[in-house]
Amino acid sequence: MIDDPQYYIQGVLEQNRRILSRTITLVESSLPAHRELAQTIVDALLPYTGKSVRLGITGVPGVGKSTFIESLGMMLVREKTHPLKKIKLRKAHNVAVLAVDPSSTRSGGSVLADKTRMEKLSVEERAFIRPSPSGGTLGGVARKTRETMLVCEAAGFDVIIVETVGVGQSETAVASMVDFFLVLMLAGAGDELQGIKKGVLEIADGLAVNKADGDNVEKANHAKKEYESALHFLNPSTYSWTAPVLTCSAREMSGIEGVWNMVLEYIDKLGTTGELAEKRRKQALDWMWSLVEEGLRERFRRNTEIKDLLPAITGDVERGETAATLAAARLLSLLDKNGSV
Amino acid sequence: MIDDPQYYIQGVLEQNRRILSRTITLVESSLPAHRELAQTIVDALLPYTGKSVRLGITGVPGVGKSTFIESLGMMLVREKTHPLKKIKLRKAHNVAVLAVDPSSTRSGGSVLADKTRMEKLSVEERAFIRPSPSGGTLGGVARKTRETMLVCEAAGFDVIIVETVGVGQSETAVASMVDFFLVLMLAGAGDELQGIKKGVLEIADGLAVNKADGDNVEKANHAKKEYESALHFLNPSTYSWTAPVLTCSAREMSGIEGVWNMVLEYIDKLGTTGELAEKRRKQALDWMWSLVEEGLRERFRRNTEIKDLLPAITGDVERGETAATLAAARLLSLLDKNGSV
Repeated sequence: MIDDPQYYIQGVLEQNRRILSRTITLVESSLPAHRELAQTIVDALLPYTGKSVRLGITGVPGVGKSTFIESLGMMLVREKTHPLKKIKLRKAHNVAVLAVDPSSTRSGGSVLADKTRMEKLSVEERAFIRPSPSGGTLGGVARKTRETMLVCEAAGFDVIIVETVGVGQSETAVASMVDFFLVLMLAGAGDELQGIKKGVLEIADGLAVNKADGDNVEKANHAKKEYESALHFLNPSTYSWTAPVLTCSAREMSGIEGVWNMVLEYIDKLGTTGELAEKRRKQALDWMWSLVEEGLRERFRRNTEIKDLLPAITGDVERGETAATLAAARLLSLLDKNGSV
Repeated sequence: MIDDPQYYIQGVLEQNRRILSRTITLVESSLPAHRELAQTIVDALLPYTGKSVRLGITGVPGVGKSTFIESLGMMLVREKTHPLKKIKLRKAHNVAVLAVDPSSTRSGGSVLADKTRMEKLSVEERAFIRPSPSGGTLGGVARKTRETMLVCEAAGFDVIIVETVGVGQSETAVASMVDFFLVLMLAGAGDELQGIKKGVLEIADGLAVNKADGDNVEKANHAKKEYESALHFLNPSTYSWTAPVLTCSAREMSGIEGVWNMVLEYIDKLGTTGELAEKRRKQALDWMWSLVEEGLRERFRRNTEIKDLLPAITGDVERGETAATLAAARLLSLLDKNGSV
């Protein structure tokens, strides 16, 4: 393992795929030495980051997430020209697909963003697919994906898609690192809204009802209406944006462009008002604080005396034998006693 | 100020109102000496706590919260006997009304649970009304109210009503200390659901549409239906309970008993399944952890070197000049450097 940060920094900026992958491997490593090296690299790359559209995507298994991402990705890596006149309507994008899946195991790696799921996209020049960092807590996985996103931006990717299966709090984690959080929905039979995970609509910037094809079109339109009325009060537009609901068919490649235009409209609108820049500033700061608190908790738990006492104390609190305040005070006093956290 | 814990412990257990008030004053004090004394007292009283119905109540200003609480309180402090036969249908309860209002100022004290708002109830033998502890963070205010609740339970109050105006996260704070969280609603004109604060329905154990009187009855019933359909997917019943929606008129004293019966049914149901005990255990443990994390943050911020560096570092992170991970690592390293938090 080369330990000269310049090697990675240069390589990434020169868009060298092999070095990009190596850098991400460093970012994903848990070895202190690697972590330190990765931090130096990410910090040096920082000035070259931020020039991408950060799109988060979630949806329950079976909603067709991979197919949707592949369709969207395939559309974006190709430039769009006017059918008759040879005017370029959209430039070809460099698309990186990352994932946050805390359930993924070290051994098998993540199923998310698995190349085998996106055969067409994975062989595209302009596409880069990276499975979810495996193992560790959601916090750890999210941290690694965040840094990988920055590294990919420095490597010239101007569209970053971060997908999640929505295990535990992973949607919130992804929503807090992207510009636009898209929730893919299904037009199920009967009550559309039962399947919704608590709170996910509240953080959605937009919805897309997938599989709006064949006999399913009518169902999808019905679902669209139900979601719209739900969003109406579930997702009070706190800024100059109210989450729209669209329908699409990833399989038939229909409506995909509409979804992308929704994202662009959002970027454009909030870019003009300055809300997007503010959102990113806040995301960075919130992230720093969550890392600080994670660190504090870690140090707290590492304290040997606390480690020994914790089971007994938590037991007493659960049984109502010790007041929570007293228990907390006791635990914290151990820190002072030991001098250091 | 007497500093012998026994004085307070005995006084509270003997249900001495004057000593009860003094104990609560200790609990609300921020002086380290008082805090320590209060902790000893609360811990000693702990075995005598928990034998009450803990009811949290929120609602926007104008919903008639005080009138509702007074009506409910007046009903509960009187025993209910059968109109014809002299059978006791409900024993007279001892009702304590507490409040969580982080916006209340030290000077004026809290408007919440202000005696002047509940003239009838405040003069009742069996009622005890305590304004919100004033000043400090929500965490601090909530902590004081939690301990006051325990002290009141030890003093023989078997119904504790904790009200909040719902400033910031105060609803979540109150919901996390009570058995049943009641949300008072209003039958407004037009869209009922606009007024709802994000997330409040998700933590509600029940709703009551107030002011269902006179010309308003029809409106109230309409609102009831709207809230019911909203709760249907907003508040997926995670356990053997789905939040019901009732209508009532605190002014006309109608429907109040229905609301109370809803609370009792909840207590009965979840008491049998053991979910209520589990809920209280979890609440106590969560509380301990939030206190620990509060303490850790406090120690972190107290660190002089961090204090000096924080503005610069947060600025760098906001401007995207320093990576959040690196910033967090730097800040945490200062702890180790200083040895102590």
